[in-house]
Amino acid sequence: MQTYKAPVRDMMFALHELHGLDSVDPDLAETILNEAAKLAEQVLAPLNASGDLEGCVLENGVVRTPGGFRQAYRAFREGGWQSLAGEVEYGGQGLPESLNKLVEEMVCSANLSFSLYSILTHSACSAIFHHGSPELRATYLAKLTEGVWSGTMCLTEAQCGTDLSLLRTRARPAGDGSHRVTGTKIFITSGEHDLTENIIHLVLARLPDAPAGVKGISLFLVPKFIPDAAGRPGARNGMYCSGLEHKLGIRASATCQLQFEEATGWLVGEPHKGLRAMFTMMNGARLSVGIEGVGIAEAAYQGAVAYARDRLQGRASESTGDRAADPLLVHADVRRMLLTMRAHAEGGRALGVWLASQLDLAATAPTPAAREEAEDLAAVLTPVVKALCTDLGFEAASLGVQVYGGHGYIRDHGMEQYLRDARIAMLYEGTNGVQAMDLAGRKLPAQGGRLLHRFIEPIAAFIEANGADPALAAFVGPLGAALEHLRDASDRLRVPAEVGAAASDYLRLFGLTALGFMWARAAALALPRQDDAFYRAKLRTARFFMERILPQTGALLAAIGAGGGVIEAFEDAAF
Amino acid sequence: MQTYKAPVRDMMFALHELHGLDSVDPDLAETILNEAAKLAEQVLAPLNASGDLEGCVLENGVVRTPGGFRQAYRAFREGGWQSLAGEVEYGGQGLPESLNKLVEEMVCSANLSFSLYSILTHSACSAIFHHGSPELRATYLAKLTEGVWSGTMCLTEAQCGTDLSLLRTRARPAGDGSHRVTGTKIFITSGEHDLTENIIHLVLARLPDAPAGVKGISLFLVPKFIPDAAGRPGARNGMYCSGLEHKLGIRASATCQLQFEEATGWLVGEPHKGLRAMFTMMNGARLSVGIEGVGIAEAAYQGAVAYARDRLQGRASESTGDRAADPLLVHADVRRMLLTMRAHAEGGRALGVWLASQLDLAATAPTPAAREEAEDLAAVLTPVVKALCTDLGFEAASLGVQVYGGHGYIRDHGMEQYLRDARIAMLYEGTNGVQAMDLAGRKLPAQGGRLLHRFIEPIAAFIEANGADPALAAFVGPLGAALEHLRDASDRLRVPAEVGAAASDYLRLFGLTALGFMWARAAALALPRQDDAFYRAKLRTARFFMERILPQTGALLAAIGAGGGVIEAFEDAAF
Repeated sequence: MQTYKAPVRDMMFALHELHGLDSVDPDLAETILNEAAKLAEQVLAPLNASGDLEGCVLENGVVRTPGGFRQAYRAFREGGWQSLAGEVEYGGQGLPESLNKLVEEMVCSANLSFSLYSILTHSACSAIFHHGSPELRATYLAKLTEGVWSGTMCLTEAQCGTDLSLLRTRARPAGDGSHRVTGTKIFITSGEHDLTENIIHLVLARLPDAPAGVKGISLFLVPKFIPDAAGRPGARNGMYCSGLEHKLGIRASATCQLQFEEATGWLVGEPHKGLRAMFTMMNGARLSVGIEGVGIAEAAYQGAVAYARDRLQGRASESTGDRAADPLLVHADVRRMLLTMRAHAEGGRALGVWLASQLDLAATAPTPAAREEAEDLAAVLTPVVKALCTDLGFEAASLGVQVYGGHGYIRDHGMEQYLRDARIAMLYEGTNGVQAMDLAGRKLPAQGGRLLHRFIEPIAAFIEANGADPALAAFVGPLGAALEHLRDASDRLRVPAEVGAAASDYLRLFGLTALGFMWARAAALALPRQDDAFYRAKLRTARFFMERILPQTGALLAAIGAGGGVIEAFEDAAF
Repeated sequence: MQTYKAPVRDMMFALHELHGLDSVDPDLAETILNEAAKLAEQVLAPLNASGDLEGCVLENGVVRTPGGFRQAYRAFREGGWQSLAGEVEYGGQGLPESLNKLVEEMVCSANLSFSLYSILTHSACSAIFHHGSPELRATYLAKLTEGVWSGTMCLTEAQCGTDLSLLRTRARPAGDGSHRVTGTKIFITSGEHDLTENIIHLVLARLPDAPAGVKGISLFLVPKFIPDAAGRPGARNGMYCSGLEHKLGIRASATCQLQFEEATGWLVGEPHKGLRAMFTMMNGARLSVGIEGVGIAEAAYQGAVAYARDRLQGRASESTGDRAADPLLVHADVRRMLLTMRAHAEGGRALGVWLASQLDLAATAPTPAAREEAEDLAAVLTPVVKALCTDLGFEAASLGVQVYGGHGYIRDHGMEQYLRDARIAMLYEGTNGVQAMDLAGRKLPAQGGRLLHRFIEPIAAFIEANGADPALAAFVGPLGAALEHLRDASDRLRVPAEVGAAASDYLRLFGLTALGFMWARAAALALPRQDDAFYRAKLRTARFFMERILPQTGALLAAIGAGGGVIEAFEDAAF
């Protein structure tokens, strides 16, 4: 059953205890999380199954979201949730990303489709704030920050997904400072809908004098309605939605084909430097997509636990009750599945908050050195969180189905929706294979290995500091082994020709080590507080992770160590 | 794209080269496979996407299958495919199961939903043949063998899936040798449809004097239409379809809720011994479900290869062409995914044929000792093939989506259908967790470990015979390591309390070792024939499996070795 209750206690643990957020008072953070929980549990979650069933409808160029979404979005916006981490200068509340991502997680758990109407707006604000002209900032940022208007990212075209060098959409100067944008974009999330009074598209296109390839791509802001002198939505722009995709999941999210026909747009950032501006947006979006994986893992976990408590089936070997059958929860294999899902959700949450806290530090740390350190760590963690947490989210959703047995396969219980919804996160904002290449091919060799060092150093320091504590040996020992595997694997990837074949396994090895670090630190915090059930559960989940999941690093190192020879040697014609 | 071409060459390899089928002339086997390929490719595959979209419709108790299914089923039946491995005495062709399962695989690749209208009929024949009275055999077996009538298995009730002790359906003697059966069954595959003139339900129910629990369950044959004196469908029986499930996938398969209201039925086998008769049926069905996983893996692989050849995206690092982009196939990470899928499909096929060949031997081997040996091996391999091949089928389907990127998530390319369809096979005919408990909790300790020994002995003999050959070291070495891991893990499971927490990991470890044996033997056959592209591809896929997949056995042993303590210790209230 889709019965979501926001895990505020564990969120507070990740935020304050594990990652030491000190810019927000814990009481305030908890109040905010509890308020967000009400919205997620009471407003958004009840629309998840109905939204999936109903889907979006395109009629005469207008997209109608499922019943209840308009009211829910209004509640979301009026509650100030869109503006939570927005720039204060533009009406935002300026709260840390690490807090904001936990609110995002709740929204994703409750209703992944709904979350997609708001998440990209936050990223669009970031791109306009950092790269837009003062005029663009003045015209668009307040409305976007508040969520009165929403934002999109328009990258993909039919012939061009991962490889933006193939992009065909064109923009020509109109002579008045604006441009005319023409082309067809596909897979545009929230490209058209009925939730906001305007939609602001950030569109990649080529200028007439653009160099070939990715060095000739510029970013344009193209509003659905061109703001008038008073900043209100004015003339309809030359773009429209020509189709909605029929998808495996996130069926309440409008995935649009958009036609731009001499649409008026404004350059964001410098000509031909559009990718840089877009990646400002994309990196934030990649963290958000990782959080989607965490949100689905949590929701699927809760749904599976509820069923495992209620469903009576089979007897435990040591059952003593006089019931005809025991709850599924007594069966060790069911508990194994539940603990795996729990480890995925809590570990992913801890990792996501770690990355978000680095983004906060990169913006606010007092010294350039501290900001650089945070930026480095964020750069290396972004692809890891995106790919690892979405992989684990899908695995958790699949385990959620499995706990239900045949009942998981039918629509009624809602577990199959989590599976369908979870699958998209491994694909968009750069497939997980693209993330792996970003990590292993770009981030790993960057700055002479400095980014990798930023990641390894705090882990090595933790091991050094705690290695002699026998009470922590069951955590520090496996973490140390994983770190050695990561070091070995990183050394092997110094040969560039080995990167491609190893990248996905390397990302998983890297991600498991990162999770191991989260769990070892959690265990160290939990160990002295075993009089409290929360910390007992935390310690045992940490132990479960160390014993049952982390050993995979050895197999991953073996796979990486074998090299890419066989993959390369396989004859193309033989596939 | 769903563009299926039956892998007849590899099927012949599995059948004759790897498993040495000698009861059928290779030319005849190849002719049969080529004919089946035509049906699968030209008749069944074109109905896969349309059947999924259209689904089944229940109106006034009548189930209408999707457009084209009636014609396709007629072609299937008239082509003699239903009767391929049927008993000669009842009009069957008496061909080996090992050949029949390959035909089943083609049908599953082409149209998994369609396959479900025929596969259970074959199992129903087996149950009636082995346990039914002469009258029941005479009345039903010829029609079922030919596929003029179809069969079902009616086990599940709303409160009772895995745990049959909770079964409530009742049967009372009618005084004329028949019984009256009353109860509600759910999740009945092909419980009602429009493809055959009669449907024969094999129903588990309790007699009035039945002992409690699973020792009080009997099996009844309940026809939809009661045959008249001439054996033609006569009076409508007291049962009807009261609902169809809305499911994640296999949407063209009618999953029915059936109401039995004083329906006339006949006992199959002895009173209260229904489970034994049902398991005759179930074991055959479990192999078939494993084959479903193989079929989906093959179909997803082919779909992904087609896209990887066509789609131009990105440049290979060593690209020399003057195209704007290279096919996906040049990218090492894409090749890694394709080879993983290929290894899953070919390895699963080899393993499925191994099991099927043991079923053939169990029926036909000349000595009791040889029959017992084959039965032992079949008993231990059945849960492994069911769970492992369905897990790998789902993994392959998910990789197939991943190769397509965002295009894999939308309906158009058909890859998301494979993912949805594949998921059921991990759930029905006993969830994969139930298979794991069957293997680790029942088969492993059975007969003082004799079943495990039957499995290990030929692997150890192969290693002994080939261990000194340096050309095979890259295959025999990893196989030997996996076998040691399996032996270690098996020793640990001698403590019954450790079985539950370890069972799923143990099944995977067992299954990977079995696949390793298949691949090592394939490599030994392929090595001397490297002038032929088929054997070059076989050898490289074997190498890929050894290097990139088989090392997981070490991590699985570590997880098993950690024991179930943490899983048990986790407090129920803390979930």
